[in-house]
Amino acid sequence: MVEGVEGKRVRIKAKGRIFEGIAMPSSTGSFVLKLDNGYNLGFSEYELIEVIEEGRPKEEIAELAKKEELPNVKIISTGGTIASKVDYRTGAVTSQFSAEEIVSDVPEIAEICNVDAMLLYNILSENMKAKHWIELAREVYKAIKDGYEGVIITHGTDTMAYTASALAFMLSTPSPVVFVGAQRSSDRPSSDAAMNLVCAAKTAISDLGEVVVVMHASTSDDFCHIHRGVKVRKCHTSRRDAFRSINNPPLGVVSYPSGDIRWLSSRIRRGERELRLKDRLEEKVVLVKFFPGLKPDVLDYYYDKGYRGFVLEGTGLGHVSTDWVDTISRIAEDSVVVMTSQCLWGRVCDRVYDTGRYLLQAGVIEGEDMLPEVALIKLMWLLGNYDVEEAKRLVKVNLVGEINPTTRYWDEEV
Amino acid sequence: MVEGVEGKRVRIKAKGRIFEGIAMPSSTGSFVLKLDNGYNLGFSEYELIEVIEEGRPKEEIAELAKKEELPNVKIISTGGTIASKVDYRTGAVTSQFSAEEIVSDVPEIAEICNVDAMLLYNILSENMKAKHWIELAREVYKAIKDGYEGVIITHGTDTMAYTASALAFMLSTPSPVVFVGAQRSSDRPSSDAAMNLVCAAKTAISDLGEVVVVMHASTSDDFCHIHRGVKVRKCHTSRRDAFRSINNPPLGVVSYPSGDIRWLSSRIRRGERELRLKDRLEEKVVLVKFFPGLKPDVLDYYYDKGYRGFVLEGTGLGHVSTDWVDTISRIAEDSVVVMTSQCLWGRVCDRVYDTGRYLLQAGVIEGEDMLPEVALIKLMWLLGNYDVEEAKRLVKVNLVGEINPTTRYWDEEV
Ligand SMILES: N[C@@H](CC(=O)O)C(=O)O
Ligand SMILES: N[C@@H](CC(=O)O)C(=O)O
Repeated sequence: MVEGVEGKRVRIKAKGRIFEGIAMPSSTGSFVLKLDNGYNLGFSEYELIEVIEEGRPKEEIAELAKKEELPNVKIISTGGTIASKVDYRTGAVTSQFSAEEIVSDVPEIAEICNVDAMLLYNILSENMKAKHWIELAREVYKAIKDGYEGVIITHGTDTMAYTASALAFMLSTPSPVVFVGAQRSSDRPSSDAAMNLVCAAKTAISDLGEVVVVMHASTSDDFCHIHRGVKVRKCHTSRRDAFRSINNPPLGVVSYPSGDIRWLSSRIRRGERELRLKDRLEEKVVLVKFFPGLKPDVLDYYYDKGYRGFVLEGTGLGHVSTDWVDTISRIAEDSVVVMTSQCLWGRVCDRVYDTGRYLLQAGVIEGEDMLPEVALIKLMWLLGNYDVEEAKRLVKVNLVGEINPTTRYWDEEV
Repeated sequence: MVEGVEGKRVRIKAKGRIFEGIAMPSSTGSFVLKLDNGYNLGFSEYELIEVIEEGRPKEEIAELAKKEELPNVKIISTGGTIASKVDYRTGAVTSQFSAEEIVSDVPEIAEICNVDAMLLYNILSENMKAKHWIELAREVYKAIKDGYEGVIITHGTDTMAYTASALAFMLSTPSPVVFVGAQRSSDRPSSDAAMNLVCAAKTAISDLGEVVVVMHASTSDDFCHIHRGVKVRKCHTSRRDAFRSINNPPLGVVSYPSGDIRWLSSRIRRGERELRLKDRLEEKVVLVKFFPGLKPDVLDYYYDKGYRGFVLEGTGLGHVSTDWVDTISRIAEDSVVVMTSQCLWGRVCDRVYDTGRYLLQAGVIEGEDMLPEVALIKLMWLLGNYDVEEAKRLVKVNLVGEINPTTRYWDEEV
């Protein structure tokens, strides 16, 4: 790359054609140009013709004119990588990126829907807490009540699946509620932000009535998956296709750039459920991951602090050491103790081994095929809205797609 | 299935042939016959000819005659499903199954190696603890010192990867140390025990000098994978192909029934390392899985009990809430605090976001591409054998294949 042009507006010649745009920082060694339409192109061979402008003037964000024939979608921005940008004049990564700016960077969205944007937070998602989930659920509720066809929530990827689960339990929705993020910031050559946003917008106006996560699904830029919010997990620290549906196929696939949706598995349809909000969450619920040698006193520690919800991330079919049985049977008297598996894939079944049967006798409730994180949030929600006995009953009942009907587990090979 | 013949020796006619064996319990609706050679056959249509014997007499376990041309392998049995059997006279699942019996059930092994068997434990692996790991490491050390070509350890699948990691750190070995288990008990029609054992035996005499896990790798019975002990995880509660290498390709694939090994990635070869045992483990090390809203007081709880090793299972590239920074910087003064990721796949990198940089300033050490469980055991081993400063230095250094060299993570797509 020609030194010193980074961040400047340049004209180059490559592949026999002339290109104009902003020279971008690149980690791959090739020269990357950001075109005015928002796309990035990489060149291994090129010739610099001229530097047109020293620095890119701050773009004017045009008030998007509404088109009457298009549905209205609300975008709520909460922060994360999808809302961060490299400032090419200072070189720093900033995350002062509002929802309007996201849209102005991805002009295709204006062809799909009319967008109203709202900046709710600007935080990295590792700093989210239950109070953010509750405020967000209220904003989404309001937007759907106001008649938006769907809601898009831009969110950091780290804890997106937690927030999506929280909303799935708190909010019964007739319309799509779509979480989207990016693994690379919006203006990196390899950013997945534009594609993810386009696919999210298509999902937000589709025939869907549940909380989903829409993210990059392959190593090339050709499709996103629509994941059920309570059945998805971030499974890679950095790959763009990090999100995986667990114990459920993705609900659908959105092709890019066409935006066509193909549904892959049964979903809740638009209008099937009424709009309702039950937004209380009990914060004194804990998830404890078991490992060989971990002692059960940590359960007492939380119990003594008033916790009455415990999710254990056990081994295999749902085990912890037999040493734990006494403590569990003591706390299970007036608490809910749910067993999940650190295998993540598959279903808990404590009837197979003695170790499991002792746990059941002690009062452990099998978390079925729920992810540990989902069981945690479900229990926060149940204990926020019901008494312990009712929470014990409901934790095993499928409420929003978090539990699939029993499969005969010995034979299950999918 | 004809009622009442389960557990009895019968003769049937099916597919135009006569078969004789023990009628087995079946969960699939078809009739399953255990032949005298140990194999199970399933029939959907058949005709019962006669009941030959009311109950199967306890098999005599033949002392296996040694063949001079074959290498000697030691099998150490520790328990788990691979060591359990349904008793067809009482119907109960027992786990009174010694290593000799395993071998007598899988006669192919006698063609591969001479076996000496030892029953060390008979426990489900969720009940394993550090003391078992230490005793086991000593037994394996002894066996290799005694000149065995390789050692096979039969083990419950739940915590097999933990035990394999523990041995990998404690024991430097010139010969293969092979963990094997089964997801279905040995005498179930769908058991993977025989195949896994044959593949383990082939691995135990191969050109390998490290601790590995050999388990079923596909939905059909055609091959096993050889996984590096510090790079493997049980990723399904019940599937036979539950074990997956994470952040590393499997070391090799063993075809079944041929037993041919194809190596897939670089390995430590036989004889490359000297036999050495460093079998101290510090038990006051804890793994804490972070979730949004979890408060850092749990670190103080363990710190106050004298813990000086902490593995955090953070989100994404290795984050916890910024609330945690103060507590971490306090305990990191004289403790080792290692960050890993609940994504499991990928590498921790705390230099990308502010949240991560604060953690680094507070003294967090990036766990690179180590699994949380592996980082836990590595830290137990480091603090058992070195002081805190040396442990801090070594935790980031690759010792036995637990850390791969840095990949440029933005570009990493594998
Ligand atoms: N740590 C960031 C990562 C991302 O946005 O993708 C977050 O979750 O907010
Ligand atoms: N719970 C058993 C499962 C198995 O053996 O596969 C164990 O780990 O011991």
